[in-house]
Amino acid sequence: MNPQALYKISYGLYVVASMKDGRFNAQIANTVFQVTSQPVKVAVCINKQNLTHEFIEHSGLFSVSILKKETPMKFIGTFGFRSGRDIDKFEGVNYITGKKGTPIVVDNSVAYIEAEVVNSLDVGSHTLFVGEVIDAEIFDDGEVMTYDYYHSIKKGKTPKTATVYFEQK
Amino acid sequence: MNPQALYKISYGLYVVASMKDGRFNAQIANTVFQVTSQPVKVAVCINKQNLTHEFIEHSGLFSVSILKKETPMKFIGTFGFRSGRDIDKFEGVNYITGKKGTPIVVDNSVAYIEAEVVNSLDVGSHTLFVGEVIDAEIFDDGEVMTYDYYHSIKKGKTPKTATVYFEQK
Repeated sequence: MNPQALYKISYGLYVVASMKDGRFNAQIANTVFQVTSQPVKVAVCINKQNLTHEFIEHSGLFSVSILKKETPMKFIGTFGFRSGRDIDKFEGVNYITGKKGTPIVVDNSVAYIEAEVVNSLDVGSHTLFVGEVIDAEIFDDGEVMTYDYYHSIKKGKTPKTATVYFEQK
Repeated sequence: MNPQALYKISYGLYVVASMKDGRFNAQIANTVFQVTSQPVKVAVCINKQNLTHEFIEHSGLFSVSILKKETPMKFIGTFGFRSGRDIDKFEGVNYITGKKGTPIVVDNSVAYIEAEVVNSLDVGSHTLFVGEVIDAEIFDDGEVMTYDYYHSIKKGKTPKTATVYFEQK
């Protein structure tokens, strides 16, 4: 088996946000995808260790902000490599709240999706949350950040808790 | 809600293949993604109406061939817009069989993944099949076909049974 083959799968880069008891948190994810069109449902795959996982389980709500190509590495670093247990990730960040009150990150986003969890699947280290889309809007018609661009052009790293992490031997 | 926002999600383009009673079938899919890294598991989202769905349910096996950027539209048409109930999609197509005997389409593929279903989730019109990866190899280090490229450059269409179909009003 050549694990590099798995790197040929295409992804985007997203901020997935949720809330618990009035507190907001968000994290970077690459596994966001539409699973049905009638009704429109999306799935996100989130590590059980992450605070956002706890918040989605609790509220049954999540938002996805689709990142633009020009998103600075510092922004990705804050959301992707730090824990909401240590810092308030929303400090200094522009956001709105959706129809159900879900926090939605606006900075560096071309579009967003707000979804309500209708199903979930335990896949081991991660949970696949399936959400029915409540709302979705476009902020900006710019190009999106792909995971391939993040790695090959921006030389971005992947944390151990990611769905796609491979240890470098 | 602006359904166009959902189009900002990034995908690749794949041939997902399976088998039943010695017969092979395959279809085009855009929703293929890794869900865990230890062990390596991938998920595919397949319409219940499709013959490949029946074959995956029956065999508990599927392969994913990751399509290259130069894949001809005719090839995508055969696998994506015709049913294996009417034609033998493997006629004239180069393929190999994997460790568990799963058919793997070689033509136009940069890499493949063979997986054994360990979990599945009914999401309505579609099923999310989660498979543990048995094998994965790279055929070719070329660029992959993204769903965005397929739509915007190749002017590709999407069948009604897709996860991302929106009716044009």
